[in-house]
Amino acid sequence: MSDLLIKNVRVLDGEPSEILIRKGRIAAIGDNLDGAGADVEDAGGRIAIPGLTEAHTHLDKSLLGYDWYHNDVGGGNLMAMIDNERQMKQRLGLDPHVQSMRHALQTAAYGATLIRSHVDIDTTGGLKALEGVLETAEKLADVVEIQTVAFPQSGLMIAPGTAELLDEAMKMGADLMGGLDPCGVDHDPKGHLDTIFDLASKHGKGIDIHLHERGELGAFSMEQILDRAEALGMKGLLTVSHAFCLGMPDPARVTPLLERLGALEASIMTTAPASSPAPLVKQMAQYGIRFGAGNDGIQDTWGPYGNGDMLERAKFVGLRSNLRSDAEMYMALDVCAGGGAEAMGLERRELKVGAPGDLGIVEGVAVAHAIVTHAPRKLVVKAGRVTARDGTTLMDAP
Amino acid sequence: MSDLLIKNVRVLDGEPSEILIRKGRIAAIGDNLDGAGADVEDAGGRIAIPGLTEAHTHLDKSLLGYDWYHNDVGGGNLMAMIDNERQMKQRLGLDPHVQSMRHALQTAAYGATLIRSHVDIDTTGGLKALEGVLETAEKLADVVEIQTVAFPQSGLMIAPGTAELLDEAMKMGADLMGGLDPCGVDHDPKGHLDTIFDLASKHGKGIDIHLHERGELGAFSMEQILDRAEALGMKGLLTVSHAFCLGMPDPARVTPLLERLGALEASIMTTAPASSPAPLVKQMAQYGIRFGAGNDGIQDTWGPYGNGDMLERAKFVGLRSNLRSDAEMYMALDVCAGGGAEAMGLERRELKVGAPGDLGIVEGVAVAHAIVTHAPRKLVVKAGRVTARDGTTLMDAP
Ligand SMILES: [Zn+2]
Ligand SMILES: [Zn+2]
Repeated sequence: MSDLLIKNVRVLDGEPSEILIRKGRIAAIGDNLDGAGADVEDAGGRIAIPGLTEAHTHLDKSLLGYDWYHNDVGGGNLMAMIDNERQMKQRLGLDPHVQSMRHALQTAAYGATLIRSHVDIDTTGGLKALEGVLETAEKLADVVEIQTVAFPQSGLMIAPGTAELLDEAMKMGADLMGGLDPCGVDHDPKGHLDTIFDLASKHGKGIDIHLHERGELGAFSMEQILDRAEALGMKGLLTVSHAFCLGMPDPARVTPLLERLGALEASIMTTAPASSPAPLVKQMAQYGIRFGAGNDGIQDTWGPYGNGDMLERAKFVGLRSNLRSDAEMYMALDVCAGGGAEAMGLERRELKVGAPGDLGIVEGVAVAHAIVTHAPRKLVVKAGRVTARDGTTLMDAP
Repeated sequence: MSDLLIKNVRVLDGEPSEILIRKGRIAAIGDNLDGAGADVEDAGGRIAIPGLTEAHTHLDKSLLGYDWYHNDVGGGNLMAMIDNERQMKQRLGLDPHVQSMRHALQTAAYGATLIRSHVDIDTTGGLKALEGVLETAEKLADVVEIQTVAFPQSGLMIAPGTAELLDEAMKMGADLMGGLDPCGVDHDPKGHLDTIFDLASKHGKGIDIHLHERGELGAFSMEQILDRAEALGMKGLLTVSHAFCLGMPDPARVTPLLERLGALEASIMTTAPASSPAPLVKQMAQYGIRFGAGNDGIQDTWGPYGNGDMLERAKFVGLRSNLRSDAEMYMALDVCAGGGAEAMGLERRELKVGAPGDLGIVEGVAVAHAIVTHAPRKLVVKAGRVTARDGTTLMDAP
């Protein structure tokens, strides 16, 4: 934490002004602020946006720094992609600490100050991925705050020994219990959900479950999830990632799910996918559901997409939810900033006095312009300390 | 047309080699080519891709070069957006020639060598937009080939006088007859379609109709369109833009439409939209339907999105159709290059001997990498002549 005075800066689409950060929090916004003792930066009339939030990614397995991965698996078969990935990670000898450092620093260079990462826990790799990401979280504490989710990527009930590893992962300090398609991957929704809710309850932690299942199947699994979260009184402690089923065109089926999610103060994390039905920005707001966004895995064995840029992701959120006006573009940005932080159970990142001193200085003549062009960030600030300049973090990646 | 030898260039993901263009066509690809008398460029080991095809845009109405447009209309109400645009164009005094020069040159700087542009014809602006775009097409003939579509943006049956203007537009040299949502905008599908098919037939031209209508309504309009195109024997002369209805989840309804489109050798143009059902790459290929892509309008009163970059559009195509493997990413690129050219009724752009000498030299360690990062183009070549370097056209925009 540090004291920082940023001059000649536009707060979103406002007129040039100043932002003063003291002891890591925004202390004042206005003209001619008293910056005695503070470092000073001149934003050159550029726009400030809140610190961005990468609310759903996988830090342990991108291929950043490796030769380009030529993909011959393609989309379509989930289990084939899961198996291919587990084998490729072994073959390439991926070091989860090194990969997560590269991935997290790239994400921070794009202006994220918060990351929630799922981390593979399976009987091949054991707890090595979690060890590596926790080491990264510690090293990068001043750059980006990282939450970890113990994630049974290769299945739970179909992979004996995984439950014990997940229990161990929670003891090691994973922040949330993960889960994955209880019908589609494990073919045993009761077994899968009983196990992960028991473990979350035992360790007093929240849950963040991947739910790709679509339509009626996803709605069924969502109900099983909600039943358990309600029974355990997990207010503010449930996240469902992807939740494609909420995009199914059947309000009579979806509305009760939305109402129950809202009542639980639950979170939904999305990539704003173009190829799937998906939860939408105004739909989530209407039901009081916390809504965050993420890249999901980036440049890995799953595909070439993604780069950690949550400002470009705001563009995808806008395109997915058909947002166009200035007011709507602010909503897209918020999903990738303050809204995403709330969805992670943390304080909103926003440009208001009292808020955490996390922000980015971006190129563009207007906020909407900055979102659609997502040029390299001029400056990134975490708790009043500069962490990146001109698209590059001050700390080098390994 | 010119002679050009490009050295040290990778043809897609191949090894470094050479490409020789003679008299505007690719004359040879290989090592130690005889480039006597030809200009020489060194690609520095970068990747060559075919000239890109912007197959659906609106050159006459982007706001490029103006102050940023602050949008308070938003999405949702089509007629409100149409009315807002027509009023704003008058208020801002947009010059269609100047705007289309800016827009087309920006698109060319990103590597497009072909553009199909719809041009507004309405009783407010008359034929001014078409005059301006035709002037641009003439001035840019050596940079990018521009097709024009006479487009009744503000409706046809609901705007008396428009049909006469469309007739006039075809006489002036518009390449295709346009149309728009015969139910949704005109509320008179028979009147609308009879008029535009009569005009197309009278002038011996093809049709490119905007069809945003979704689900059953869109399928109905599609049938009315197909009935007329079949009756007139318009093989290879029908394009339907957007065609959201082909993405409806009802194969029994959609399959006959796809079969009829395939039999007509019809073209579908898409933006690969994230917020709508949409035709997909493999679906179009399966039925032999020509498939092109475009930005649609860029940075205009409709919204902040779009920039003319057809390599970024290939990323959107890949995301929309869930394409991931190398082979699939080539398909995404082809929709935005050779496939799009075919959909425009022109020769495929591809890196083969005998093909037109239109290509781009792009950054990236692999084609998939070039698509997902879409860095500024190193070099753009049209018929063997360099038209852009490092993201900027050699010709200045007004
Ligand atoms: Zn994920
Ligand atoms: Zn259009």
